[in-house]
Amino acid sequence: MNRAHGGDLAAFKREYGVEPLDFSANVSPLGVPEGVQAALRRAAAEIDRYPDPECRALCRAIAEREGVPAERVLCGGGAADLIWRAVYAAKPKRALVTAPCFGEYEAALEAVGCEIVRSPLPYPFDVTDELLCLIDRNLDFMFLCNPNNPTGRIVKTGLLRRIVERCAETGTRLLLDECFIDYLDEPEAHTMKRALGAYPGLLIVRAFTKLWAMAGARLGFALCADAGFLDAMRRAGPPWAVSTLAQAAGLAALRDVDYVNQVRRLIRSERPRLAEALRGLGLRVVPGEANFLLFQSRTELDAPLRARGILIRSCGGFAGLDKGWYRAAVRTGEDNDRLIAALGEIIK
Amino acid sequence: MNRAHGGDLAAFKREYGVEPLDFSANVSPLGVPEGVQAALRRAAAEIDRYPDPECRALCRAIAEREGVPAERVLCGGGAADLIWRAVYAAKPKRALVTAPCFGEYEAALEAVGCEIVRSPLPYPFDVTDELLCLIDRNLDFMFLCNPNNPTGRIVKTGLLRRIVERCAETGTRLLLDECFIDYLDEPEAHTMKRALGAYPGLLIVRAFTKLWAMAGARLGFALCADAGFLDAMRRAGPPWAVSTLAQAAGLAALRDVDYVNQVRRLIRSERPRLAEALRGLGLRVVPGEANFLLFQSRTELDAPLRARGILIRSCGGFAGLDKGWYRAAVRTGEDNDRLIAALGEIIK
Repeated sequence: MNRAHGGDLAAFKREYGVEPLDFSANVSPLGVPEGVQAALRRAAAEIDRYPDPECRALCRAIAEREGVPAERVLCGGGAADLIWRAVYAAKPKRALVTAPCFGEYEAALEAVGCEIVRSPLPYPFDVTDELLCLIDRNLDFMFLCNPNNPTGRIVKTGLLRRIVERCAETGTRLLLDECFIDYLDEPEAHTMKRALGAYPGLLIVRAFTKLWAMAGARLGFALCADAGFLDAMRRAGPPWAVSTLAQAAGLAALRDVDYVNQVRRLIRSERPRLAEALRGLGLRVVPGEANFLLFQSRTELDAPLRARGILIRSCGGFAGLDKGWYRAAVRTGEDNDRLIAALGEIIK
Repeated sequence: MNRAHGGDLAAFKREYGVEPLDFSANVSPLGVPEGVQAALRRAAAEIDRYPDPECRALCRAIAEREGVPAERVLCGGGAADLIWRAVYAAKPKRALVTAPCFGEYEAALEAVGCEIVRSPLPYPFDVTDELLCLIDRNLDFMFLCNPNNPTGRIVKTGLLRRIVERCAETGTRLLLDECFIDYLDEPEAHTMKRALGAYPGLLIVRAFTKLWAMAGARLGFALCADAGFLDAMRRAGPPWAVSTLAQAAGLAALRDVDYVNQVRRLIRSERPRLAEALRGLGLRVVPGEANFLLFQSRTELDAPLRARGILIRSCGGFAGLDKGWYRAAVRTGEDNDRLIAALGEIIK
């Protein structure tokens, strides 16, 4: 099980003495929204009080944005906190993950001694009907990430509906990780949030990290119609998972619709351009639809990019991916040009 | 098991429309140190990066203040996060707590299905030799809080050493909660941190919350000489438990020695004054030595104090305490006078 993650800038800085240009973390390249920064500056004087453990104001604001009832929203200290709480609350015996997928799923499952069933995804790493055959009454938990990290691939909507349906039939709790859904061209066509009421076993996880460049604040939320399970998640960890600062930042982020439109527009235009340039260098690029791209290289890229002050994510440690796979966030045009130029030098 | 906590200002505000004068949370009454606020304002623009998951700079600074090797320090999202991680990592089968004690111990133990042995503390709620008899080979985990929350009572140093020694003999992991130790007149005479090397089963937990008024930032740390157990605690939850903001705040707090001296001086002079005033009102006051006082009243105090805009902590839900026990933080002279006056009106 690989537990390294992108974005470990402190380690890079210690080794190279400078901050890297970071393509290893999948966050918005536009920096922290000004409204979020202002909210944090205001909240600085108020951290002498405990945070609202129930994040009441923030839950209401999320519910309004997502068009779901507020009682179906649970906030957490980042999506990872919610993933861990869900696993600790469910204590599954046998769980399904795709290979590849986000590494924290297995980390959490291992912590509760759960048997892990890995479903390898054939290139270009798409979920197929075969996954349905693995969902049975002996499977009590399942992770699915849409679009998937680190591939950026979408689960087809018809198939996703059948998976949700099948999980309901078999009593399998489905944690659907939609952390990157806002980067799709049509998020509303792919989210399963409107199915929550019909499927209480469905738990959707989202993050503020990616869309609003808030990785350092730790804020995410879960959506679920099973009030008892949300309560079990609350009771599976300390009551103050979301700091006063993260709550203030989240409220400000939700008000900043312009920022969201701007970053989505940027990613939509830069993603195909970066993909094309990577292909032009002879790299095998997965046609991902999120704010990052997965690609395979015959040349080792990590060390030579580091030497050029650039950090990408080596994905050799992901189950289902060989050595030679890398993930790079889609950043601004200028940043992407630097990456393309550096790769050109290395590969030439 | 009581899981209500002090400091739920959002609930108060919703009910009464104003912020209360809050004696229910045991934090410094001097507000957030200016240096911490400045650090947070600076860090606001940097939350687009992931936090350093290992909190390297902060661990070094804590190690320096506490005079322990940095590899014995693990930072967490508040002391509660570390308590939960310790329990999830140890997965104890049978654990000992005192009654009364901090409610999160039992909440965490219940989450792993642990059998809980409660040792009732006789008035004035002191730990006595009898506790030693409960520590045997069938006990794999034990919580002890020094000074204890909600009583403020200290475990005598000689007895504490014998407890640590006894836990080592029986293979019982001891989580020693020293979150309030900085408020003692002589913290260095009471901390067990110098025993860490000799007792790898000893885990000390501390918080930034209380001394630096940082409840809203979520920052605490654990000290332990068992590197394997600290690592198990790291693996018992998500890797980014401590936000960029909390790390920046913590580093700034550790530099602010003046603030610490000031708040400790204030508490040392106000605690006996408040205790005396409460006794003068006919209340039974436990002679606590932390930044809060536990007292018993024949008159119901919670509702009438709320009606006067004051929040204290009703302790009737604590195991080992009847209805009629209350905890109040020691605040500034002016704040304490308001509490005393309000109580005078209610009790008269």
